[in-house]
Amino acid sequence: MSAVANPPAPPTLGIIGTGQLARMLALAAVPLGVRCRFLVRGDHGAVAPFTGVHAADDRAAFMAGLDALTTEIENVDAATLDALQAVAGPHTRLWPPATAIASKRDRRAERRLLAGLDLPQGAWVATPDPEHPGGAARAAAVLADLHAAVDQVGLPCRIKAAIGGYDGRGQWRITARADLAAVDPAAAPFVVEAEVAFDAELSVIGAFAGSRAAPRCWTPAINTHRSGILARSIVAASGTPDALRQQAEALLATLGHALDYRGVLALELYRVGERLLINEFAPRVHNSGHWTLEGAACSQFENHVRAVLGMPLGDTGLRGPCVSWNVIGRWPDRDALLRIPGLALHDYAKAPRAGRKLGHLTLRDAGLDDDRARVVEAALAAVADDRPA
Amino acid sequence: MSAVANPPAPPTLGIIGTGQLARMLALAAVPLGVRCRFLVRGDHGAVAPFTGVHAADDRAAFMAGLDALTTEIENVDAATLDALQAVAGPHTRLWPPATAIASKRDRRAERRLLAGLDLPQGAWVATPDPEHPGGAARAAAVLADLHAAVDQVGLPCRIKAAIGGYDGRGQWRITARADLAAVDPAAAPFVVEAEVAFDAELSVIGAFAGSRAAPRCWTPAINTHRSGILARSIVAASGTPDALRQQAEALLATLGHALDYRGVLALELYRVGERLLINEFAPRVHNSGHWTLEGAACSQFENHVRAVLGMPLGDTGLRGPCVSWNVIGRWPDRDALLRIPGLALHDYAKAPRAGRKLGHLTLRDAGLDDDRARVVEAALAAVADDRPA
Repeated sequence: MSAVANPPAPPTLGIIGTGQLARMLALAAVPLGVRCRFLVRGDHGAVAPFTGVHAADDRAAFMAGLDALTTEIENVDAATLDALQAVAGPHTRLWPPATAIASKRDRRAERRLLAGLDLPQGAWVATPDPEHPGGAARAAAVLADLHAAVDQVGLPCRIKAAIGGYDGRGQWRITARADLAAVDPAAAPFVVEAEVAFDAELSVIGAFAGSRAAPRCWTPAINTHRSGILARSIVAASGTPDALRQQAEALLATLGHALDYRGVLALELYRVGERLLINEFAPRVHNSGHWTLEGAACSQFENHVRAVLGMPLGDTGLRGPCVSWNVIGRWPDRDALLRIPGLALHDYAKAPRAGRKLGHLTLRDAGLDDDRARVVEAALAAVADDRPA
Repeated sequence: MSAVANPPAPPTLGIIGTGQLARMLALAAVPLGVRCRFLVRGDHGAVAPFTGVHAADDRAAFMAGLDALTTEIENVDAATLDALQAVAGPHTRLWPPATAIASKRDRRAERRLLAGLDLPQGAWVATPDPEHPGGAARAAAVLADLHAAVDQVGLPCRIKAAIGGYDGRGQWRITARADLAAVDPAAAPFVVEAEVAFDAELSVIGAFAGSRAAPRCWTPAINTHRSGILARSIVAASGTPDALRQQAEALLATLGHALDYRGVLALELYRVGERLLINEFAPRVHNSGHWTLEGAACSQFENHVRAVLGMPLGDTGLRGPCVSWNVIGRWPDRDALLRIPGLALHDYAKAPRAGRKLGHLTLRDAGLDDDRARVVEAALAAVADDRPA
């Protein structure tokens, strides 16, 4: 037998976060010969199949010798990033860049960033930082701030905690002044956004190679949310007119280049007639892009891994129309789902809990009018959290 | 926050072996919510990204509480299987069945099994177990046995060690009696097979659900071997005439049902005119089915996991024509490969070594006449072990 040469050490990618996005990034990394490490944030059952899971305070071991560092969550505090950078070698770069992550820690910063780039968004106003730490005085001051904000953006509007909310938490829909009483003053400061009367919600996701090159974009998804959580994405070549698709990609390119971005970046958009307004951006792989695992030549997860490690980007072309659903709170009968031809099941191995994303399903080569899609919709409706008693 | 219910324990699959097939089985298992454990056989770098790797002698921990046991290798000795069964609970079943594995430990048993089922194969003869442990007496006796075998099957023929050979090792091609001098007597006993003058080599792979139901078969692959190792598989709906495809699937069904099979089973076939002859079978996922990861609705790896755990089988339909290559011995420039649109790269994270399978490449929606396929062929030829000096 000939001598075994030591192979070059595989590229190693550090991922901040241990949820389903980290899980799917790792699944995409393995075939590329890339090793992943994970820094625990909250639950970590989703990455239990993998080695390299590091406790949140085990930063030195997590960072040692990494080739690149990325995050699956946007809600990373500055102290953590600073601590990681303090132990990182000079060659370990964080993608997305810290400025992109910082803009997502505070909805006000995100809105100001978009405004500074003249990117289109709905009317919004930020309420001031509360002067009172709590109690009746704080409640009264916050309520006054909210009334003043509503004066500016009008009704209906949405009130969103500037810091810490996600998946619809820390958000209130306001249709009349009286609704303001339900808003939790502890969640102030807020961004108050005029409700956009949209024709459709869509998202565009692209991969940036870290240069001024145009991002490689996947086909936009048409999205439906329920209770602030993405429920379904529909993807088809004909789903978004070319002019709108180009407009969406141009918005994404402007933002990505302004951020000196590398990796996958997503824009959630409202379509109002022939116009697009940005709802928010996500500096990471995005829930509305999970369909790319089956529906695109190269998935958002693989391209993110490639991009942050400096590998050439893969083809984002659509392989066929598809529909993707989140499984939220409870699983329908899994064997029934597995019997549906062309349906891919993705279980995140998370404990069931109301409102929690437990997995997703992608139906290939199908639109919503496909009989199989109707079977999936019925199965999900039967276990929905908000089903009639 | 509502109480977190403990989720049901995920199904756990034990895999004997730690090579690339185990790696790809585990990658397919994760999205199904299935946990894998691995029993080390030889190198285990291919499963280094995963938890649950158990040393070869750590059988009790490996087997504890498994829902199903399978193997990525056919060369599992009876003592190991017996030891595993001794520590297994009554509900842990081994798939493929031990009879299928035993038939692959000895080429004579495999040939006799096929003959007993009246399945078509080329002429073959087994040489007797050598009477002499070694030395000149053994060499002379083995040579005499080989001459007698050649009398029966004719020339050219192939001499294969009955036990322990794989990927072309322990095999000799004989075109003249003088070639017999090169055969290693230590490798006796042998199966001596008449060389089949085939029109094509193909393989059919199917998943058995463990009942008398017909297997779900993938589109047959047209295969090319070099030095006894699979080099390339071409898959297209038009690649195999319907009548031959049905013939191949019928052979697979006969064998699988005779073995009371559950899981993925592969047949390597020679096409001679309109006739098929079985070269060998593989009681596992097969190298010529790696294309199913991108080219089929449900891959051979996912369907094997589903089958051995009693889940419904997935759709084996072809998504589009594809070509798949093994990367053997050395990697071509990886960035150049990653730039080819629609080419999926699978790196097994194994140290380079002459003749070793380091990874595979699958080009989607393409045949061999595609420009991209020519680029891949040229890249592989430039690093081939047998390239001109």
